[in-house]
Order: sequence, then structure tokens, then C-alpha cells
Amino acid sequence: MSTVAAYAAPAPKAPLERTTIERRAVSEFDVAIDIMYSGICHSDIHQVREGWSEVPFPLVPGHEIAGVVTEVGSGVTKYAVGDRVGVGCFVDSCRRCENCRKGLEQYCAEGHTATYASTDKYGETTYGGYATGIVVDENYVVRIPDALPLDVAAPLLCAGITTYSPLRHWKAGPGSKVAVLGMGGLGHVAVKLAHAMGAEVTVLSQSLRKKDDGLRLGADHYYATSDPQTFEELDGTFDIILSTVSAPLDFGAYLKLLKTDGALVNVGLPEEPISLNLFSVVMGRRTLAGSFIGGIAETQEMLDFCAEHGVGAEIETIRAEEINTAFERVLSSDVRYRFVIDAATI
Amino acid sequence: MSTVAAYAAPAPKAPLERTTIERRAVSEFDVAIDIMYSGICHSDIHQVREGWSEVPFPLVPGHEIAGVVTEVGSGVTKYAVGDRVGVGCFVDSCRRCENCRKGLEQYCAEGHTATYASTDKYGETTYGGYATGIVVDENYVVRIPDALPLDVAAPLLCAGITTYSPLRHWKAGPGSKVAVLGMGGLGHVAVKLAHAMGAEVTVLSQSLRKKDDGLRLGADHYYATSDPQTFEELDGTFDIILSTVSAPLDFGAYLKLLKTDGALVNVGLPEEPISLNLFSVVMGRRTLAGSFIGGIAETQEMLDFCAEHGVGAEIETIRAEEINTAFERVLSSDVRYRFVIDAATI
Repeated sequence: MSTVAAYAAPAPKAPLERTTIERRAVSEFDVAIDIMYSGICHSDIHQVREGWSEVPFPLVPGHEIAGVVTEVGSGVTKYAVGDRVGVGCFVDSCRRCENCRKGLEQYCAEGHTATYASTDKYGETTYGGYATGIVVDENYVVRIPDALPLDVAAPLLCAGITTYSPLRHWKAGPGSKVAVLGMGGLGHVAVKLAHAMGAEVTVLSQSLRKKDDGLRLGADHYYATSDPQTFEELDGTFDIILSTVSAPLDFGAYLKLLKTDGALVNVGLPEEPISLNLFSVVMGRRTLAGSFIGGIAETQEMLDFCAEHGVGAEIETIRAEEINTAFERVLSSDVRYRFVIDAATI
Repeated sequence: MSTVAAYAAPAPKAPLERTTIERRAVSEFDVAIDIMYSGICHSDIHQVREGWSEVPFPLVPGHEIAGVVTEVGSGVTKYAVGDRVGVGCFVDSCRRCENCRKGLEQYCAEGHTATYASTDKYGETTYGGYATGIVVDENYVVRIPDALPLDVAAPLLCAGITTYSPLRHWKAGPGSKVAVLGMGGLGHVAVKLAHAMGAEVTVLSQSLRKKDDGLRLGADHYYATSDPQTFEELDGTFDIILSTVSAPLDFGAYLKLLKTDGALVNVGLPEEPISLNLFSVVMGRRTLAGSFIGGIAETQEMLDFCAEHGVGAEIETIRAEEINTAFERVLSSDVRYRFVIDAATI
């Protein structure tokens, strides 16, 4: 057991406070990691506010973790002390089900062990990355290539893989037209990734406020969804629309922007049910789909891809005492584009 | 021009009455067809009742047409007098757009010309198959193989292709688990087709009332959706769920019956919007999709497949004066499984 400093919400909706938590002793296949940076994901805020479901408190959020290995268990073969590593949204899964065997641990039939607010195989509640250290089984750790600075790499562990996986699955690439809906934490990474994959990228954002950024990050086109003209002009245009927003949308209007056989893929998770006229999918054989983070092997593939193409998150690094302010700023979309906590300040 | 007998609804929701209509003169690429049988599709009733949108009256429904060629235009190369042919849901399209060129005329960018209640390139309102004859461009006519009797073939022109196309597109076949939701006009054909394609077929029907029929037609399993146990037992089971129902459903509950990467494909068209929690598609990377009839080449492929595998609709042949009663019986699900009008009685 080791004691590490952390930031925790003591109760639902309560501000996060500095505290200490225990990490388990490093067992045979574990690696201990000194956390350097931890990204702030919109879902951290959902969880603290119990927007999706009840969660245990105190809650230590954080599943965009970048750090350095400080200790390895006797059976560890993949990592050594000093290695630069990352931990994403989950830290264990059953390893036996069809999905785990296929590298789709995120869809583990028994449910994976989330990096925080989950119960691990030892019966302990998991605590996330808003802390100075963490202990994780080596099979749920990924390597951060040397070409990627740890601070811009941290958000890739969630925002990166969440957008990379569906872009690959729905075959974004040369010749395909991809729209990224929402130019926030996930969206801005999606723009970089889709561009790096060779797709023609269009940002669909509420306003043109972030247009310059969008074009700089790799978008070929940028449209405001507040302008009804956008929907007329782009009718039947896209192969893929990747929706990164969690606000309620007029899904029928967005489905019409797809070509025949196009897919509107949701990685944002609205808290309320959506309303949909099925004509929107029947006409044009369109699909409304979803995607949830990615598997461990694919997360590694994503990091390697990012290193090769120079893709990192656009970040604003904050001190730990600014976390609660940062939460408010995320909620008011006042961040370009991801907050990263400097764990040295925890 | 020729005058043919027909059954038409004179006004929205009015009973159909015997009347006469004009068919255009046979031009260069047209074939004239003596209609032998015409299936009654649920959508005929939707249209007469203007359930989807406004339509022109008088309305002659019918887009499941089987008959024999009686005259061909000077430029016709595909058909000769005496050929057994079928006409489905549309009789023309732009022929230039990407979809038309790919054989996806049903998704024609300019909108196809529907077999009835549409305006054709001559500016005339189209009249459907509840008639003794029809004139159609040869490119929108398909051949009915000798092995298929015309009466059981007629419903294949809509019910057959509507279910065949998505089963092919989503790759139903050996090793795949297909659920057919709804055991009606479309559903019973879907069961036969999916079985003939080699899939393991499960019927999901409100009750077990038609279970014997379902198993006889090729289903391997049959479950009642009124039994909550069904949803527990079948959690995560299917690769494809083909929904043929147009009633409002709890789509979240059905999406949970899919495996990871499974697709719930709608060919039924509820008149009202559905409600959906996006968690249902995000978890398991599931898709909610739709499919609309099929192209001309695929319709021919479907008929050839049906001839090869002995697949026809289960029909109840009626006289034309029974059409209004048949409509009522369709609405109360009192048909096993498709009414076919004997056009000799019109």
C-alpha cells in the first residue's frame, strides 16, 4: 500500500478537495506510475454530478493519465522503471469473453473495471487520475511514444481513442468526407485525427467562433449549425458524422447531411433520450450508431499514430487548485481545448 | 392510351371503389403488362389514410404486381410478349445520379417515381397495381422466374425485396444470428429468406400465436415479446434484428438484444418519432439503421434467389370486391400472411 495525494469530490455535486488516498501494493503484474498529467474530461463532471448514474463517493475522477513507471511487479514483462506510459478509461476487464479476446475490452461482457468509481477485482473502489500516483495491471497500461510530450498525450487516452476508434471502424480515410460535430475536447482531436487519416474534414459547430482554430487543426471546411443554410448546403454530403456533443440535437436534420449508407456516430452521451423519426434512417439506408472509447491494443495503435503524425491535444495546463474553476469553464465551453492538471501541484 | 379497370380510393380514408383509369400508349422503351395478381401492402393502407404525407386522389394503390407482357415498344430488348414479369415500388428514377448508377435507384437523388401517387416524367399521376393492366419502362420491370407462381411472387416485389436487401447488406448468412421482429406480411418472408440464406433465425412476435407457422417457415426459435423473460434470455444474442413493425417500440430494449457491432435495421415505418437513449448504441457499438426496398438489379437477384430456394409469400387470394375488408383485416393483423388480389376479378 502507498499513500498518494489526490483531488476528490466528497459528495455528489460537491467541489473537489485535496485529500490522500491509498493505492494497492504492486502485485505480480502491476506497474506503479508517477502521474505527471491528468486530463479533465467532460465525463468527469457528469460523474461528479451523477448525471448518468449513481457513483460512490468520495470520487477521484480522471481517466486521461500520463506518467512514468516507478516500480514493476515480478511478472511484468512489458514495462520497466522509467517508461513513459498512459492509462485510459479502464484498468481491468474479464479477459475471457469474446470481446476481451478480440481486443474490445471496452465492451467486456462482464463489464470492465473503470479507472474510477468502479469496483476492482480486489473489491476496492477505484480512484482515478487526479492524483500523484496509480497502480495498474500492465495489460491495461499503454506506452506513450517519445515523440509525444506527456502533457498533450494525456487527453488522448480518452478524447483521442474515443474519436480514433470510430473513425477507423467507419473507415475514415482518403476519399471520405467526415464531419465532426462539436469543436470541443473530443471534437478538436477528432479534426486532427480525421485529417491525419486523409479524410476531407468539415467541422459543424454552433457558431463560427472557433473557425480559425478548426482550419488550423486540419479542417477543410467549417460551418455554423445555428445557420439553417448549413443544412441546405450540406444535404447528402458526408460518409461519417462523428457527434462529440452531449446536448440534445435534431438528429433527423443531421442524418439528412449523410450520403446514402452514411453513418452518424455518437460518442457524446446526452443524459436524456433523443427523439427520432425512423424515415431519417430508412431513406438512404443511413445508420445512427455509437462508439465507446476503444480497446487497449487500439489505444496503443492510436498513440503510435499520433506520434507518427504529430497529433496531440490542444491543452491548457492548470494547477490542481484550479480544478473546480476548470469544471465550470468546461461547462460553459470556455476551454481551448482540454484542461490538463499538472500533477506536481496536487 | 388504353383504358383499364382499377380499384381506387376517391378521397383520403374513403373505401376503394371500382373505376377505370387510362394507361399511357406504349412508347419506345415501354412494356404493357396484363396484371394477374397484385399484393396488398400495409403501406397501401398508410397511403390511402395519408398516414405519412398528403397524396393525390383518386388513388390506385398497389406496388406488388405480377403479370404477363402483352405489348412491347420498338426499342425494348429485355422482354417479349408472353414474358412473366413483375413491377415493384417504383417505375422510374433519374438514371444519372450516383445512386442510380450504382443500382440503388430506390435512393435516387432526385427521388424515384413511385408506382402510385407519384408524378411521372410525362407529368401524369401514377396509378398502381390494383388494376388490370399497367405500362412501365422496361428498365423498371423484372422477370419472374418460371419456378415461381405469379400469385406467391407478387408480394415479393415489395415484401420480398424490402427484407432481402437489408439481410444481404448486413450479411445474414451461415454463422449469423438474425431476429425477425414481427411475423406479418414482411416478417414471414424475412423468416423464409434469412433461413434460405443460412442464418439462424429467431422470430420475435408479440405472442406465440403464430409460432407453428414461424417454425414451419424456417425459424429456429420463436419468442413472445410480451414476455419480459424474452429480453433477459436473449440479451446480447443477435447480429441483426430486422424490424418489420411500424408500431412504436422500446428500441433500447431491442438494441440490448444485439451483440457488439450488431444492427437493428428498420424496414417498418412508424408514423410517430421514436425515443432513444443513446447509451443503447454507444455501449456495444450498436447501430440503429434503416433500409428502403431495393434496386432493380437486386430485385431481380431476389426473385432468382427465391426461385432457386422455393421461397414465395404465404398468401390469401381475394376477389377485388373484398379489398376494403382486406384492409380492415390487415389493420387487425388478421391475415396469414399477405392478401393478393386476383386481377381477373377487378
